[in-house]
Amino acid sequence: MSKKRGKQTYVIDTDVFIKNTATIAGPLEGKGNFAEYYDEVLENDSWGCKSYEKTEIKMRKNVIDNLIRKEGITEYDLDCIMGGDLLNQIVPTAFSAREFEVPYLGMYEACSTFGECLAVGAMLVDGGFMTNLLCSTSSHNGTAERQYRLPLELGSQPSPVCQWTVTGTGAVLLTNTGDKQPKIKSVTIGKIVDLGIIDPSNMGAAMAPAATDTIVTHLRDMDRKPEYYDMIVTGDLGKYGRDLLHFLAKEEGYELANVLNDCGSMIYTDKQRATQGGSGAGCSSLVFSSYFYKEMLKGNFRKILLVPTGALLSKISSLQGESIPGVAHAIDIEL
Amino acid sequence: MSKKRGKQTYVIDTDVFIKNTATIAGPLEGKGNFAEYYDEVLENDSWGCKSYEKTEIKMRKNVIDNLIRKEGITEYDLDCIMGGDLLNQIVPTAFSAREFEVPYLGMYEACSTFGECLAVGAMLVDGGFMTNLLCSTSSHNGTAERQYRLPLELGSQPSPVCQWTVTGTGAVLLTNTGDKQPKIKSVTIGKIVDLGIIDPSNMGAAMAPAATDTIVTHLRDMDRKPEYYDMIVTGDLGKYGRDLLHFLAKEEGYELANVLNDCGSMIYTDKQRATQGGSGAGCSSLVFSSYFYKEMLKGNFRKILLVPTGALLSKISSLQGESIPGVAHAIDIEL
Repeated sequence: MSKKRGKQTYVIDTDVFIKNTATIAGPLEGKGNFAEYYDEVLENDSWGCKSYEKTEIKMRKNVIDNLIRKEGITEYDLDCIMGGDLLNQIVPTAFSAREFEVPYLGMYEACSTFGECLAVGAMLVDGGFMTNLLCSTSSHNGTAERQYRLPLELGSQPSPVCQWTVTGTGAVLLTNTGDKQPKIKSVTIGKIVDLGIIDPSNMGAAMAPAATDTIVTHLRDMDRKPEYYDMIVTGDLGKYGRDLLHFLAKEEGYELANVLNDCGSMIYTDKQRATQGGSGAGCSSLVFSSYFYKEMLKGNFRKILLVPTGALLSKISSLQGESIPGVAHAIDIEL
Repeated sequence: MSKKRGKQTYVIDTDVFIKNTATIAGPLEGKGNFAEYYDEVLENDSWGCKSYEKTEIKMRKNVIDNLIRKEGITEYDLDCIMGGDLLNQIVPTAFSAREFEVPYLGMYEACSTFGECLAVGAMLVDGGFMTNLLCSTSSHNGTAERQYRLPLELGSQPSPVCQWTVTGTGAVLLTNTGDKQPKIKSVTIGKIVDLGIIDPSNMGAAMAPAATDTIVTHLRDMDRKPEYYDMIVTGDLGKYGRDLLHFLAKEEGYELANVLNDCGSMIYTDKQRATQGGSGAGCSSLVFSSYFYKEMLKGNFRKILLVPTGALLSKISSLQGESIPGVAHAIDIEL
C-alpha cells in the first residue's frame, strides 16, 4: 500500500526514532536563549583553525564523533552519513565525512537541508534499507558571510532585514529501534516557491511563501488543524519572515498564531542585536537537536512540526538578476 | 527483512523501472561518438541565453519538459524532481525545478550526483513512497570552467591530465510500473576515499580510488564476479583514471579489463582533442540516458553496473591546500 497521503506527504508507519542528538554551538549562540541545552560551546570563532572553513569542518567531524560516543556505537555501526551545509560544493560536509569509513550522501537545499535529510532519512529507515543513519547540517557565520556577502574583516553594516548566520551544527541519529525517544511520523516534501523577492538580505520574505505552502499542504494532506501540534516551528524565517508566514497562512484559512515559532527567531536574546534572528543550515539542526529534542524527552513537547526553510540563491544568481526561490520540508515529530 | 546486503549494498526487490529518459547535448557532444543517440543537440553553447548559467537552467527545464511529454504525463503526475549539478548552490537544478509545481529534493556530490539520485530514488520507489520520480543532472562547459578554473574567454591552455566538462543533461523517470524497460536491481552507497591527490586538474586520479572501493564492495556484497555484468561503466574517470581503476582493482583481486569502460572516455571521438575525456555531472546522465538506455531497450546490453564518480572539491578547498576527496555509487541496472 502506498505511503503517500494527499499531494506531497508520506506517512512513516514503522518506528523511526530520533535516537540521539549531538550539538556544537558558536560563541554568540552560547550566550543565547538555549545556552544550557548545547553539548559544547566554542570559545571563539576559529577554534584553533587557520580558516573558518577548517573550523566548520572540525565542528562537523566532532559533532559526529560526539554523537557516536554518546550512543555507545562506532562509525562501523552507521549505514550512512547524510548531510549538507551552505558552502560551495558543501565542502564542510564532504571533508568531515571523509574522516569516517561510512557511506556518504550529500544534500543541498541551503537552510532547509536539515529537513531534507530528516525526510529522506526517515523514508530510508522506514523502507527497511538502513537502521542507523546519521543526519547532520552546519553553518558558520564567518564562512557564510565571506561566501555570500563580504568577509567579516571588512566590518560591513548589516541590512535591517537581514539575519545572522548561526555558527553551529546539530547531528541526529535515526534508527528503527528505540525506547521513549521522539519518532518521525510523517514528512511533507516541499515544492519550490518564488514570489519574486530579489533582495538577498531579505531571506525571510523569500522563504515565507514556501514555508506557507508546505505547512498548509501538510495540514491538508494529513487532514489536521494547526492545534494538532504543540508547536509548528520553522527553520530560519526570522521575525519578519515569521510574521509574513502568519499572514500568508491566514489567507489560506489557517490561523497559526497559537502554535507558530521559528528557530531563527528563538535562538538569540533580544539584547544580542542579531537583526531579524538566526539563519543558516545549522540553525534548525542546532535548535532542534538541543532545545526541542531535550524538551521532548522531558515530555514538555509531545508533537512538533519542524519545517526547515531554505533560500536557493547563489551569489551569481543574484548578480545575474534572478529572484530567490524558497523551499521547505515539514517533519512531523511525535513522542 | 532488511534490504541490506553485505556492507553497503541494498537490494531493490520490487519493480523499479527506468521507464523513460530524455537528453539534451551540447554542440561538441553532438559531434561525438553518441551523436545519433541524443534527443536534442544545441547549435551553440548559449542557446539564446545571456549567460551560460541561464543556458544550463534552460537545458534542465527543457529536458524535464521533454521527458514529461515523451511519457505522456503532466508535471502533476510527478512525485518529486530530484537532481543536482556542479554549480555553487546547485542553482541550475533549483532554478529549473521552480518552473514546475513538483516537490523538490536537491542533491550534491559533484559528478557522482546522478548515481546518488538513482540510488536514493530507487529506494524511495522500492520503499513504497513514490511512484513517479524524475532524476536529472547536468553540466555546462562554460559554467564549470568559469566557476572552477578560468572563464572560457581567457583562452587558457588545458593541463594534459585534465578533462573536458560535458555540456549536457540527462533525465530519467523512475516508476513502479513498466514493461520491458531496464530495472534498478541493487545499489551500493559509496564511502568517501581520499588518497591525497592535490592537483585539481587531475580529477581522474582523485576519483579512481573511490570508484575502485565502491565497485569492489559491490561485487563482494553481492557475491558476484565482474563478468556478471555486460559492462561496468564509471562516470567520468577519463582515460587516465580508468587505467588507474583497472590497476587498483587488480590489487584487490578483481580483473576488470573485459568489462570496464567509462562514460567520460567514450563520449568524444579521438579527433575531438578533449584531453582525458569528458567529465561533469551531466556526463554520466547524458551517456546513460542516451546510448546505454537505448542499447538496453534493444537488448544489446542486459546487465550494466553504472558507477558515477565525483570529486568533492571546491575552489576554496584547493586554495586552502586541501586534497581532493572522491566518492562513487554503484547502480545495478538489468533487463
